[in-house]
Amino acid sequence: MKKAKRPVDPLHAPHETWHTALTCIEPNKILVRGYPLDEIMGRLTFGEAIYLLLMGEVPSPGIGSLMEAILVSFIDHGVTPPSTQAARHTATTGAPLRACVAAGVLGFGRYHGGDIESCMQFLDQGLELVRKGVSYREAGTEIVRRCVAEHEPVPGFGHRFHTRDPRAARLFQMALELEIDGSHIQMIRAVEYVMADRPDGQALPVNIDGAIAAVCGDIGIPPEIANALFIISRVPGIAAQAQEERARQQPMRPIDPKDSVYDGATQRRLPGKRR
Amino acid sequence: MKKAKRPVDPLHAPHETWHTALTCIEPNKILVRGYPLDEIMGRLTFGEAIYLLLMGEVPSPGIGSLMEAILVSFIDHGVTPPSTQAARHTATTGAPLRACVAAGVLGFGRYHGGDIESCMQFLDQGLELVRKGVSYREAGTEIVRRCVAEHEPVPGFGHRFHTRDPRAARLFQMALELEIDGSHIQMIRAVEYVMADRPDGQALPVNIDGAIAAVCGDIGIPPEIANALFIISRVPGIAAQAQEERARQQPMRPIDPKDSVYDGATQRRLPGKRR
Amino acid sequence: MKKAKRPVDPLHAPHETWHTALTCIEPNKILVRGYPLDEIMGRLTFGEAIYLLLMGEVPSPGIGSLMEAILVSFIDHGVTPPSTQAARHTATTGAPLRACVAAGVLGFGRYHGGDIESCMQFLDQGLELVRKGVSYREAGTEIVRRCVAEHEPVPGFGHRFHTRDPRAARLFQMALELEIDGSHIQMIRAVEYVMADRPDGQALPVNIDGAIAAVCGDIGIPPEIANALFIISRVPGIAAQAQEERARQQPMRPIDPKDSVYDGATQRRLPGKRR
Amino acid sequence: MKKAKRPVDPLHAPHETWHTALTCIEPNKILVRGYPLDEIMGRLTFGEAIYLLLMGEVPSPGIGSLMEAILVSFIDHGVTPPSTQAARHTATTGAPLRACVAAGVLGFGRYHGGDIESCMQFLDQGLELVRKGVSYREAGTEIVRRCVAEHEPVPGFGHRFHTRDPRAARLFQMALELEIDGSHIQMIRAVEYVMADRPDGQALPVNIDGAIAAVCGDIGIPPEIANALFIISRVPGIAAQAQEERARQQPMRPIDPKDSVYDGATQRRLPGKRR
Repeated sequence: MKKAKRPVDPLHAPHETWHTALTCIEPNKILVRGYPLDEIMGRLTFGEAIYLLLMGEVPSPGIGSLMEAILVSFIDHGVTPPSTQAARHTATTGAPLRACVAAGVLGFGRYHGGDIESCMQFLDQGLELVRKGVSYREAGTEIVRRCVAEHEPVPGFGHRFHTRDPRAARLFQMALELEIDGSHIQMIRAVEYVMADRPDGQALPVNIDGAIAAVCGDIGIPPEIANALFIISRVPGIAAQAQEERARQQPMRPIDPKDSVYDGATQRRLPGKRR
Repeated sequence: MKKAKRPVDPLHAPHETWHTALTCIEPNKILVRGYPLDEIMGRLTFGEAIYLLLMGEVPSPGIGSLMEAILVSFIDHGVTPPSTQAARHTATTGAPLRACVAAGVLGFGRYHGGDIESCMQFLDQGLELVRKGVSYREAGTEIVRRCVAEHEPVPGFGHRFHTRDPRAARLFQMALELEIDGSHIQMIRAVEYVMADRPDGQALPVNIDGAIAAVCGDIGIPPEIANALFIISRVPGIAAQAQEERARQQPMRPIDPKDSVYDGATQRRLPGKRR
Repeated sequence: MKKAKRPVDPLHAPHETWHTALTCIEPNKILVRGYPLDEIMGRLTFGEAIYLLLMGEVPSPGIGSLMEAILVSFIDHGVTPPSTQAARHTATTGAPLRACVAAGVLGFGRYHGGDIESCMQFLDQGLELVRKGVSYREAGTEIVRRCVAEHEPVPGFGHRFHTRDPRAARLFQMALELEIDGSHIQMIRAVEYVMADRPDGQALPVNIDGAIAAVCGDIGIPPEIANALFIISRVPGIAAQAQEERARQQPMRPIDPKDSVYDGATQRRLPGKRR
Repeated sequence: MKKAKRPVDPLHAPHETWHTALTCIEPNKILVRGYPLDEIMGRLTFGEAIYLLLMGEVPSPGIGSLMEAILVSFIDHGVTPPSTQAARHTATTGAPLRACVAAGVLGFGRYHGGDIESCMQFLDQGLELVRKGVSYREAGTEIVRRCVAEHEPVPGFGHRFHTRDPRAARLFQMALELEIDGSHIQMIRAVEYVMADRPDGQALPVNIDGAIAAVCGDIGIPPEIANALFIISRVPGIAAQAQEERARQQPMRPIDPKDSVYDGATQRRLPGKRR
């Protein structure tokens, strides 16, 4: 605030410039990472534009395909995730959609989505051992041993619902077909063998968080951007769930996820040309 | 809460089922609108999957292209929008990315993004007149007159920065090329003529909100889903801006958008095959 | 952003001052509405300071007592309100307390807390009739009739749980004892008679929202400040519920409010000198 | 969701009860920590009720006074804090008050309010040394040394604006007068001496976060509850600032905190009987 005679303090220092490298706005011109936004429209998909915005360059076709698959893989997981429940409880109060989405996004906490970043760091520990000459298998054994010693769950493995995560399998298959599987995927594969060898009840399969962590590692996406991708990818699901709550349910209802019944389309296949 | 002998009230009524039609979760199986999620991965883009989730069906190629273009058109608008500023101010406190995104999303208020829904209702008023036999031009004149009479801005027209919104022009061009331009686009074109005829200072061009409203109207997307699309489309920008704040700036800094300087890539063109 | 030669637009206009009347910050001095904050500490209660900040003046003792009672009346309502559920679902993901509080606050929607503002406008409609010479009883009958005609619930009446809201009774009693009951309380009392006369199933008692609306009307608190009071008053409950979730429950649990059991202190009375 | 024949998983396990000790809701009865809410109204202040809800018991008069002072001390700090800016930027988009409050609360991040919890842990490290026979002065020297060695700021010391935080001085004075100053205040006093002895530019005074941390330690409030108190205490300020933005400013304006001018009440004193 402007007041006469006061000691200098940071908020009253002379105006100083600061920098941004994302989007340049000029009258009648919007450049995203240097590309005119109207030229990108119709030429890049939303997934490719997300990569451009976050990483600074247009992705190669292969990386672009993996980006789309990563974003699609998280798009929704039904009514039970706590983030979805937070969004539905906000919706039942009559709140606008953006408030429901914000409440849902806040539920992407340590135990929900945070595994991608943790798993990237976990794999990096293994790869550090590999760089020192240890085999992938031994490195996998060692980093799992460390988790067990610290009573920490192994990040990227196990799922509340699934004993085999179909999204993880698909993502690895795509990476293989696109020849984008590198050391991170090799590392998580090694950990997978270690995890499968554990006694019953402790044997856990790799989950989608783990698969994304490995793929992001191999295509050079740093952990904080992988975290951004997770947030972006689930927003459509949060929005769709909140919108369905608003459209199909009474306001101010008590919501028990266990009482929900699915009444949507039965299982179907994509049209032939899409397969 | 469980307590003996109390009058029946809604929260203690017998468990009742409720329904959801979005995503069916079974062990090792995730069906989004009936399609196995792992089959969608690699076959639908993120933009197509968003359409599927919100609208219930895989889009046709033309509608899919428009969906991608709509989602891309809003992806970021630099550092000045209040939603972006809310996200950056949250980021400077050291908050995690999801909190910054939530704060940003909350800034998609009445004056920021809300224009899409308003413009859809505005165009529908005009189309109702057309259905009664009034010409598009007369209908456009009439609905603009109503706004002026109520001292309301004409929704979908004018922009804080741009005198000609390049995103709107591009979206109309795509709709034309894809032959998806119907009565809503005809209606907004009629309004455009009316708006251009107004005396200097009141002549306002159609903006991206208006263009999206018209296109959504023509491809059958209802206003509340168009609103969801707007929220989804800007989340990457909010996340990228918050992430840049965290990566490039000091914590707890005062932020004045007017002092920002763009230091990113200079204007460039997409690689040839993308054009 | 700074760029050479561009048309004037609002964000590049010369720096202009704007005004705030709440708190003046100078080095080593903080004035809240003109009072040094350190002088207020220990001399005003939190409730009185909230009134000072929102209304601009220190409340009279009577108004101060009503402020405290209003703020206390909403402090918590158990585990079932959707806002509380949103906060608990956010807490179970491992999110920090502030994220849980934010998610909960977003659930103060149209159907949850919004009734105070609606009821104030409703009572004002009645008082307008009274000013035109209609009796309170007739005015009450008329404004209820209008709600019924528009298929709108009568704001400030009825409760999901309670057939007689003990908080409303207490607040009216306090207003009476403090001789602060004016025309708004008279108006809601008239509506209460009308509502009690309705046939079974439609007879609804005044609730705490209605009582607060009437009291705020009589002590000159405008609707938007009453809304702020509601938000402020429930934040401790949201925070306490989220904190209990973090402290007593497993992360990532499914939460069904109907399965909760109260295991806290049994009913007790305040120490004698407090009565 | 209900589906035939599936492996047991956590969300389909039999309904299990869970417990809450905060508020018991029965028809026409609300017990907060065992006390009927309508009996508390008018008998406990909001500050005392907050203590009751969070800590489980009615505070003693002395602790009650300190609670009020702590809550008042944080009530507002002008337009510059990033949390306030996030709330104002949300308000300028036309968002409802609750959305502005949520956005503001999300800005209570690591660098903004988080210092209370850090400082409590910091003081506990010192007190552990004291319990081992080290003097307060030596313990203070040692824990400051550790911060310096790890290039961490000393929590609870220094302020962006103030060279002497008037709120901290007042809180210590109150604790002294109420004879509630114990080992935590003794510890922070010892650190204060150490900090004052540092060479120019590094000499930092205790701030309000530090004072609250010490007082909370001495009255038995654990760090996570102290964090809840911080959130609760600033909500009125966030709400008042957002409300002022809505009432006095144009929508969608660019906001530069440096351009603000205070035009509220000039410095004044509380009425005599309040002093």
